[in-house]
Amino acid sequence: MAMFKIPDHQVAGHQASNGMIGPLIDDSGLFFKPLQKDDRGSKEVAFYKSLFSNTSVPDNIRAFFPAFHGTQLIPASDGSGLHPHLVLQDLVSSYVNPSIMDIKIGSRTWYPQASEDYIQRCFKKDRETSSLALGFRLSGLQIHVSQKVGYWKPERRSLQNLSAEDVKLILKKYVSSNAPDSDADEPDCVFASSVYGGSNGVLAQLLELKTWFEDQTIYHFYSSSVLMVYDKETTLETKSNAAIKLVDFAHIVESGGVIDHNFLGGLCSLIKLISEILSDGHNCPAKTCPPCSDEDSNGNNHR
Amino acid sequence: MAMFKIPDHQVAGHQASNGMIGPLIDDSGLFFKPLQKDDRGSKEVAFYKSLFSNTSVPDNIRAFFPAFHGTQLIPASDGSGLHPHLVLQDLVSSYVNPSIMDIKIGSRTWYPQASEDYIQRCFKKDRETSSLALGFRLSGLQIHVSQKVGYWKPERRSLQNLSAEDVKLILKKYVSSNAPDSDADEPDCVFASSVYGGSNGVLAQLLELKTWFEDQTIYHFYSSSVLMVYDKETTLETKSNAAIKLVDFAHIVESGGVIDHNFLGGLCSLIKLISEILSDGHNCPAKTCPPCSDEDSNGNNHR
Repeated sequence: MAMFKIPDHQVAGHQASNGMIGPLIDDSGLFFKPLQKDDRGSKEVAFYKSLFSNTSVPDNIRAFFPAFHGTQLIPASDGSGLHPHLVLQDLVSSYVNPSIMDIKIGSRTWYPQASEDYIQRCFKKDRETSSLALGFRLSGLQIHVSQKVGYWKPERRSLQNLSAEDVKLILKKYVSSNAPDSDADEPDCVFASSVYGGSNGVLAQLLELKTWFEDQTIYHFYSSSVLMVYDKETTLETKSNAAIKLVDFAHIVESGGVIDHNFLGGLCSLIKLISEILSDGHNCPAKTCPPCSDEDSNGNNHR
Repeated sequence: MAMFKIPDHQVAGHQASNGMIGPLIDDSGLFFKPLQKDDRGSKEVAFYKSLFSNTSVPDNIRAFFPAFHGTQLIPASDGSGLHPHLVLQDLVSSYVNPSIMDIKIGSRTWYPQASEDYIQRCFKKDRETSSLALGFRLSGLQIHVSQKVGYWKPERRSLQNLSAEDVKLILKKYVSSNAPDSDADEPDCVFASSVYGGSNGVLAQLLELKTWFEDQTIYHFYSSSVLMVYDKETTLETKSNAAIKLVDFAHIVESGGVIDHNFLGGLCSLIKLISEILSDGHNCPAKTCPPCSDEDSNGNNHR
């Protein structure tokens, strides 16, 4: 019989604790997400079924979503008996010490068809968090610091209402080797080029998603997240193991023949900040950078 | 002494009529826009001054804006005496029979710093119009039909709350030679490829703007419009005379280091609809299109 356990590396969403129902994982790389009792659960199931049967979704795009293995009745994490769960790929099971960021995309988390009560609650939250200004908000983070220290996992609340500059600092800490909880040290960004850059890195993956969002008029994604994962330990030895995935689909609606401009705008905003970190290479890490004064703004060296 | 007159070809914005103050033009190609009395007037002046002095705005982008010639006290259109006016380029003075579309960009026309009253009014209007769903709304239109018939100029209200399909129909009528007020005939789209397509057409110009909006963190544009103009009479004889301009800058705010994801999203939504019309070429005009069955999806002809 399969053994279920509470995931070690969940950074956002409902978590199993204090008698609350939350997701479970098993040893074979599966992630069991309890179906929410209102229509959110059935909507998320319907979305996964649609996504994995719709032939107009390109394979390279389907790969950004967790693999879907239907639904299953398993014992709930709160001990309340059997409960239906979505059976999904556990996105972090192949990582030893995953550094994870959950970024809820869109300046607006509500959709026109929602109830007025839901719209007003989201409207308020979007204004109180960075969603409105940045087009996204951070909704979860853990950074692996070292075997000795373990993970830096700031309070979710402290992440939700950051300025562009603050988010950029977090995005730098995410790819740095020095202690992320210290504000004294500039993040060294030693993993920036291997995690964010390169033909297989985070930026390339986000741009691939962007190209699809500029064109697709199948789904509109509200309150969905981009999940960014990588493993520091193996990043320098091998090529990048950074992965971008999309998660949380309880609020997907039909497009009405229009692109998802709300998601696309937020995605482009995130892309811009990550691009800036890559092109700001001179600031971080400063130690290993040669003098720049002989270079003009095009990067041409006149010597 | 300069002679001022009421413009023939204004499709959106406050118009001079019934004792209301509105813009004026002169014979030399200038457009005089009365400064609005609250801070909107001074904000628009400040924006133009900033735009034309900010060296980080590329010249190709500055060309999308009306040329700015300062402010001037001239007699108001309502006869109420001297009033300060923005002195701008008259964007349509070089066209004999301009077909014009005014498209207010952004699913959200309000900005966080605005008053709560203003936010609530815009929030309501954005939900009541197509802004929320499409990421833009049509706020003015005139299509030149023929010398005999003159212009088709639908009521503004009838344009503001269209579905994606309805907007696409308007965008087709805009580049068609047959009567736009008839719903019986399919628009023939004879001007589609010369106006929307080509290296200098509407789509190319919108993509040039999009590239800038993906990168610029100088301004956020709320309630600004994309103005599309061309002249049917000369379009078939010469190369495209279609122009894309940006207008209305009473609600420009600083970026906070973030791209204008709200404007960018709406712009991409418009771009997608225009791209579809160009790639739907087979539907319109069907009569002049050769059989397509020998072409593969890449447009390669195997004969």
